Amino acid sequence: MTVYEKLQELKIELPVPAAPVAAFVPTVRTGNLLFVSGHIAKREGQSWAGQLGNGISVDQGRKAARSAAVDLLATLHHELGGLAHVKRIVKLLCFVNSAPQFTEQHLVANGASELLQDVFGKDGLHARSAIGVAQLPLGACVELEVVAEVA
Amino acid sequence: MTVYEKLQELKIELPVPAAPVAAFVPTVRTGNLLFVSGHIAKREGQSWAGQLGNGISVDQGRKAARSAAVDLLATLHHELGGLAHVKRIVKLLCFVNSAPQFTEQHLVANGASELLQDVFGKDGLHARSAIGVAQLPLGACVELEVVAEVA
Amino acid sequence: MTVYEKLQELKIELPVPAAPVAAFVPTVRTGNLLFVSGHIAKREGQSWAGQLGNGISVDQGRKAARSAAVDLLATLHHELGGLAHVKRIVKLLCFVNSAPQFTEQHLVANGASELLQDVFGKDGLHARSAIGVAQLPLGACVELEVVAEVA
Repeated sequence: MTVYEKLQELKIELPVPAAPVAAFVPTVRTGNLLFVSGHIAKREGQSWAGQLGNGISVDQGRKAARSAAVDLLATLHHELGGLAHVKRIVKLLCFVNSAPQFTEQHLVANGASELLQDVFGKDGLHARSAIGVAQLPLGACVELEVVAEVA
Repeated sequence: MTVYEKLQELKIELPVPAAPVAAFVPTVRTGNLLFVSGHIAKREGQSWAGQLGNGISVDQGRKAARSAAVDLLATLHHELGGLAHVKRIVKLLCFVNSAPQFTEQHLVANGASELLQDVFGKDGLHARSAIGVAQLPLGACVELEVVAEVA
Repeated sequence: MTVYEKLQELKIELPVPAAPVAAFVPTVRTGNLLFVSGHIAKREGQSWAGQLGNGISVDQGRKAARSAAVDLLATLHHELGGLAHVKRIVKLLCFVNSAPQFTEQHLVANGASELLQDVFGKDGLHARSAIGVAQLPLGACVELEVVAEVA
């Protein structure tokens, strides 16, 4: 099954990537590594704003992380000219907008990690860190950045 | 125009890099990648202390980010033996010391991103994440880390 | 002296690495780079919970960072089939769970940086960033992630 068949099976439609809202580019390739810019979680095209432990539940956070991962796939698809060029998701860094007492950043990040594995199989298995940050651009509840191996 | 002529045009003088204040080195090269240690924003040689959304304005934050990027260029110049060895700024991670309600980390980070593009042109275009952190070493308002492709 | 003799001299016993508690893997290798997942500080097998500047002292934080670095060595040993495969510790990112006024993240991170240099000598000298985060998974006081050059 190709990655695109898998996306279809999961009923995931890749959105058109939004242009960065600031002075940077979506991805930079160096050798076989692709560094992907931070993707904030969005809902209906706007920042998915809020804070875990303060109005956003773990389940909502997981969905936001999954949604940001879908946007990230759309960026990879668009920048590489197809997801078949992704050889491996190497590293995921998941920033979770966290109230002072919220300590389940890893569960939120799973929303992204599981999507990447659902889509890429074992090539989607990645190293990861999940951390709780004080705030994120546009108040987003989650932001993801990725390093991928590409061909 | 060389990078140094560009710096002159921008009236930017590269400072002498400060030695790390702790048990690490300014940069490590592996293959063609150079990983650059976190650079906190400084003013008159001291930490540019403060928090965005709590005494430091977006405009001040941008200036602090730009200033940290200049220090980072000084480190690259010193470590590589010249900025001509920088082939591409690959990735910028911008940590913004943020009050709980401050959500314009991306605008602060632009201070660094725009400087890098002013100096390196299209080779300065980078992937980027900007996040709001709870605090930074020595109370700095901004910290930057970079991955560069070098030759 | 081999790395293992050095560990013995330092009276450090490598623990059996814990499996990730979420949907990711401990390390991913791409080319000669190994990206290592975030390791939270632990004590007696549990998260070393707490916040710097709010119940956890700098000295405790240093010890927690050192302890997380030992766990990270255990992961490297286990994943690579031996620490002799580590050519260089390239980059350390140290997340410090920080109360709003705590500004000595760099001193906490030294607990990890110094351990890496004690064990690997000059090959343990790394680029580094240390930042203060709002929270960490399971309430840990410190989390470390590393990029290493391997052979």
